[in-house]
Amino acid sequence: MIDFPHIEEISQSNKSKVILLVVDGLGGLPNPSTGMSELETAYTPNLDQLATESACGLTTPVIPGITPGSGPGHLALFGYDPVKYYIGRGVLEALGIGIKLGKDDIAARGNFCTLDDEGNIIDRRAGRIPTEQSTILCQKLNSIDIDGFELSVEPVRDHRFVLILRGDALSDRLTQTDPEQLGVSPLETKALTDSATITASTVNRFLSSARELLKDESLGNMVLLRGFSKIPTMPSMSQRYKLHPAGIAAYPMYRGLASLCGMEIIGTGETFKEEVETLAQNYDKHDFFFLHYKPADAAGEDGDFDEKVRALEALDVEIPNIVKLNPEVLVVAGDHSTPALLAGHSWHPVPFLLRSVLCRPDEAKRLTERECTVGSFGQLPATSLMFLALGHAGKLAKYGP
Amino acid sequence: MIDFPHIEEISQSNKSKVILLVVDGLGGLPNPSTGMSELETAYTPNLDQLATESACGLTTPVIPGITPGSGPGHLALFGYDPVKYYIGRGVLEALGIGIKLGKDDIAARGNFCTLDDEGNIIDRRAGRIPTEQSTILCQKLNSIDIDGFELSVEPVRDHRFVLILRGDALSDRLTQTDPEQLGVSPLETKALTDSATITASTVNRFLSSARELLKDESLGNMVLLRGFSKIPTMPSMSQRYKLHPAGIAAYPMYRGLASLCGMEIIGTGETFKEEVETLAQNYDKHDFFFLHYKPADAAGEDGDFDEKVRALEALDVEIPNIVKLNPEVLVVAGDHSTPALLAGHSWHPVPFLLRSVLCRPDEAKRLTERECTVGSFGQLPATSLMFLALGHAGKLAKYGP
Repeated sequence: MIDFPHIEEISQSNKSKVILLVVDGLGGLPNPSTGMSELETAYTPNLDQLATESACGLTTPVIPGITPGSGPGHLALFGYDPVKYYIGRGVLEALGIGIKLGKDDIAARGNFCTLDDEGNIIDRRAGRIPTEQSTILCQKLNSIDIDGFELSVEPVRDHRFVLILRGDALSDRLTQTDPEQLGVSPLETKALTDSATITASTVNRFLSSARELLKDESLGNMVLLRGFSKIPTMPSMSQRYKLHPAGIAAYPMYRGLASLCGMEIIGTGETFKEEVETLAQNYDKHDFFFLHYKPADAAGEDGDFDEKVRALEALDVEIPNIVKLNPEVLVVAGDHSTPALLAGHSWHPVPFLLRSVLCRPDEAKRLTERECTVGSFGQLPATSLMFLALGHAGKLAKYGP
Repeated sequence: MIDFPHIEEISQSNKSKVILLVVDGLGGLPNPSTGMSELETAYTPNLDQLATESACGLTTPVIPGITPGSGPGHLALFGYDPVKYYIGRGVLEALGIGIKLGKDDIAARGNFCTLDDEGNIIDRRAGRIPTEQSTILCQKLNSIDIDGFELSVEPVRDHRFVLILRGDALSDRLTQTDPEQLGVSPLETKALTDSATITASTVNRFLSSARELLKDESLGNMVLLRGFSKIPTMPSMSQRYKLHPAGIAAYPMYRGLASLCGMEIIGTGETFKEEVETLAQNYDKHDFFFLHYKPADAAGEDGDFDEKVRALEALDVEIPNIVKLNPEVLVVAGDHSTPALLAGHSWHPVPFLLRSVLCRPDEAKRLTERECTVGSFGQLPATSLMFLALGHAGKLAKYGP
């Protein structure tokens, strides 16, 4: 995490195009039976060719040893310090279902839960009731009316929902109501600062009403709230980098993350092929494009090594359609590693390549964890990648006389 | 940019000698027709020999992607955070012509410009009038007298000059008077803080007088000022590192940068050969020597690949005269890259070597961009180099019990 306080002063607009392709969960670990990682196993002739024409390296998403969520992973790649700018759980959940949040809105992640007759929690997830059922419960909760505030409850999946609270002078400095144990009552939220007192009492009034409205439900007869958060106040990429940036992503969460940074979200495609078509169709309209590829992460999260290999091979097929646009700077990177071996995100550095006529040649001939260790970029904080992309595109003036 | 707040406590004086040879603009990029950089193309048997006896690596001048000016590039090599300590344009211009600035003096970079009859700018550089002509105009401006302040206007080159303002309680928090466009009037300067109000009105009085004095000139009938600055308040190298340091540079700007850090400037030679003679003659008198070699940068700035190769070869010839002094630590580094391909400074990491009996041997056999990627120092912020030099010289005590 390196920030540079003068970035706005030195950034300058020009006609060069930058494409940042984020392969979610790109990095991996060797399959114990072959000694080769997902990237090393995959047949990726197009990425290999690109790597030979590029300079390579590895990014550390946050700092060594720290495993990032999707929020910090992406913010870092967009050049924002993921420690300085924090995306709360409520906000990320809202972004994930495509909710557009205003800068003063509070979002919280909610669970339906089950209480016994004494009001103690016997299931924190209400038997993981199906989405259809929690959609009905959310409709009930949406009838709650608290004077001076606008409340909205949106189902996510199974027992999960998002609560959005809109109004004046709201604060997200609230404690969670989930005691994270059974046999006790749900908590009231408490204000962590004086300025959060009114928000806390509003949320607690919502909780009382919810309890009353849901009391006859067999499973979801109460709610637990956590991750109260507002969107972080960040300079947009236009302000920070003087870009006219576009975000292209099939999944709402990544569109949301891109729009937080001020990218214009273009395209509504559901496949990566459609994303690349959107890129080509809009290539003249923007100078920076963020493209998101999800399937590698999804397979890694499932712990499915072979499926992750297939996802990388499917990505490779589309690479020529990006390369043929011939942007001044093309970056292929990942927000974090998702080794199938771990079935989850990890802290491992993530291979990347950057193609530009101003790159230093290196010995890395494939975009793999091992080859990229001899890349000429070495190992860098992920936040450096955006500055490098801008530098190679001529979009950063000299610092200091 | 890594700083260490305890550096003063742990630095200790000893008899070891450290020589830091800064090859300005050392790093480069491959010539598209050969695939080899300036350093790779140059015949440098002495530097090669030195590299085999040294440990190597690459420095990042400020942070990845950021191109530094000469000020930040050198401060970093002297171990000062180039973001924390900023050298303004006015100060650098003054240092470049050998003006000694007091800590409260304000320096501004000036341009003679041409106004039309309505007072609008028609040429921001006054037709790039020759130095002889602007020297005469500067003499005129030096007749301006503002009570309580000392003003001095010194020609630099062509249409450029430096304005120095001396007096009590001056502030450099002023806006520039150059609107950076044609067809409009020069601006007045404005105070950016309350404490700059008096300075602003003094500068504006100077500008009115200048306009009156120059009104009959055909080309240089007005001035534009920018980069108001004071020298940064920095601990000297004696205080910070307990060194008795000397600076040897043929160009005034680098002498100025060295003296800002508290180096004693020795020698008045104009060639690098003379610099090395000065080094040898004064070798007993100091424990740290900064030597500056300019021609590589100058050729790079001119976009002249072959000339940069020749400049590196000319440097190589002098290397034995440095090596034979056999300092405990010899560092050859650069303040930034100046690839001929870009005809200017760049962000690319800069190769360096450090020779000491305490170095870890490595596989880098030449001081080139490619070889140094396998050096045992890896890629480091440029500010680390000074600490490494001091560490290898036994000039840093243990941190913590």
